Amino acid sequence: MKKLINQAEDVVKEELKGIELAHPDLVKVFYDPDYIVRADAPVQGKVGLVSGGGSGHEPMHGGFVGLGMLDAACPGAVFTSPTPDQMLEATKAVDGGAGVLHIVKNYTGDVMNFDMAADLARGEGIEVESVVVDDDVAVQDSTWTAGRRGVGLTVLLEKIVGAAAEEGRSLKECADLARKVNSQGRSMGMALTSCTVPHVGKPSFDLTEEEMEIGIGIHGEPGRHRMKVEPADKVTEMLLTPVIEDLPFKEGDEVLLFVNSMGGTPLIELYIVYKKAVELLESKGIKVVRHLIGPYITSLEMAGTSITLLKMDEDLKKLWDAPVKTAGMRWGI
Amino acid sequence: MKKLINQAEDVVKEELKGIELAHPDLVKVFYDPDYIVRADAPVQGKVGLVSGGGSGHEPMHGGFVGLGMLDAACPGAVFTSPTPDQMLEATKAVDGGAGVLHIVKNYTGDVMNFDMAADLARGEGIEVESVVVDDDVAVQDSTWTAGRRGVGLTVLLEKIVGAAAEEGRSLKECADLARKVNSQGRSMGMALTSCTVPHVGKPSFDLTEEEMEIGIGIHGEPGRHRMKVEPADKVTEMLLTPVIEDLPFKEGDEVLLFVNSMGGTPLIELYIVYKKAVELLESKGIKVVRHLIGPYITSLEMAGTSITLLKMDEDLKKLWDAPVKTAGMRWGI
Repeated sequence: MKKLINQAEDVVKEELKGIELAHPDLVKVFYDPDYIVRADAPVQGKVGLVSGGGSGHEPMHGGFVGLGMLDAACPGAVFTSPTPDQMLEATKAVDGGAGVLHIVKNYTGDVMNFDMAADLARGEGIEVESVVVDDDVAVQDSTWTAGRRGVGLTVLLEKIVGAAAEEGRSLKECADLARKVNSQGRSMGMALTSCTVPHVGKPSFDLTEEEMEIGIGIHGEPGRHRMKVEPADKVTEMLLTPVIEDLPFKEGDEVLLFVNSMGGTPLIELYIVYKKAVELLESKGIKVVRHLIGPYITSLEMAGTSITLLKMDEDLKKLWDAPVKTAGMRWGI
Repeated sequence: MKKLINQAEDVVKEELKGIELAHPDLVKVFYDPDYIVRADAPVQGKVGLVSGGGSGHEPMHGGFVGLGMLDAACPGAVFTSPTPDQMLEATKAVDGGAGVLHIVKNYTGDVMNFDMAADLARGEGIEVESVVVDDDVAVQDSTWTAGRRGVGLTVLLEKIVGAAAEEGRSLKECADLARKVNSQGRSMGMALTSCTVPHVGKPSFDLTEEEMEIGIGIHGEPGRHRMKVEPADKVTEMLLTPVIEDLPFKEGDEVLLFVNSMGGTPLIELYIVYKKAVELLESKGIKVVRHLIGPYITSLEMAGTSITLLKMDEDLKKLWDAPVKTAGMRWGI
């Protein structure tokens, strides 16, 4: 294992310290339990958005804390769910009196711990709603999931609902919006290489020099099939077709197309995938009206990509375009 | 070689098509010869900034074309200098009557071809100045370089001089500013793994599972020494110390600290390096007043990092903070 780390057990703490040193204008970092909140938290009268999950997917979620996106993120150990006490403290720290929305990726540990934290927070008089993201069409159940996994759509949902909270929508409106986004978005990913979890020290799975895994999860969970590496155009089609057919996305739909790097795949390749995806969508009469291209929900250094489609409307476009100021996503401000 | 590409010879053209499809609001893309210009080029009365170099370092340079940064970028084949005709056409396309500044990384082919393009453009009546970036303290001469290589400082220089051009400074002022930035910035990089150039099909160099290369160039050119992998803190010190000592940066200096990923190194590791770098600088009384953290000048999927320090003053801080709107760097707008 070759990584720019010190002791494997210190990776998350040292990363958090780096974030704290780099972004005091955006966030405050707390330790034991670990959580990140926006610098001006709690924002009085605004719904607080809390997300979290295992570390190793950066910039998600800590890099999405700030104006127009999340109010707090709870980082677990690498690929390990955060604990209820992290989520409870984060919830309390961002409660500005308008309630708190938990955005939970569908992994068994995340769902269980966020449920417990929501109960504890309600016990302290905070109104909490939860939304589970489960956009991965690749498999029904998986290593750490009952039902579909939460993957790339999480990034889009956090941006859009973050903008809604920022403009003063209520907890119920934010929760309904989050459920709408989840219902209108679908994703699928693939890997060319594995990643290595620092405290494990060896690759999460093995792929030969000729193989790729289609339908991979963001922790390297098995996908649909392992097969010989194909050209980018073919891979793009293998990811996009099940995504389109699942919702289904239809002729005349306007979509946001998100081409994500799993971490190790460079931008030059993402644009090749993006090109083919646009061509395929256009051939079906589906119009790409917004996009996101880059490493936003990663699996450490894994090489690969995921494609997310979100059906857009005027409200979602307006919320997507709204200003955002975080370490990992910024525009309009 | 496992990559998300189709034919190796089509990589750059397909990437450009992806950029064209994604960013029509920011750029226009031209083919044969290939170059990217900002959507509103030429901007009348503004100095035009043109850079370029081999592809494979994305987002540099194409991702830096837009308001407040470059007016044009000329992408060569992967790790191959662009040609004088690309540079000439780009220069003509962005000439708004105030002259054009060529920002050239110090590689023999780039310097030679930009020189030729400048001569040709002058022959067509365009005032052209050139600035060569040579910030890499690792080695004096290298595989493709007489003198020091141009690396991470290029990103900072393009942002700062881009802001100066945007606010209406003259060609001479922009060129002087670029030379000042070059004189006040230093960089050094390292690699944990090699990268693979698509049309070569095998790794550019070999590192064992236990080795790293300190002082690597952005094309995998040899550095200062190859050694056993050390912890991130030690690696950070090995990069930062020669950078500090070279200028030298001194107690009381204010600096911009840029921790860059070579491509395959994830954000979680960059923040660990950033943390240690800040601690080292603070211990020497050097104050980090601005920063940049992420993959901005990459070497395809190479794992590794580079550290750049730039001595700041009030003018440079103001220019750094000025709005920028490009695919690869955006804030304030």
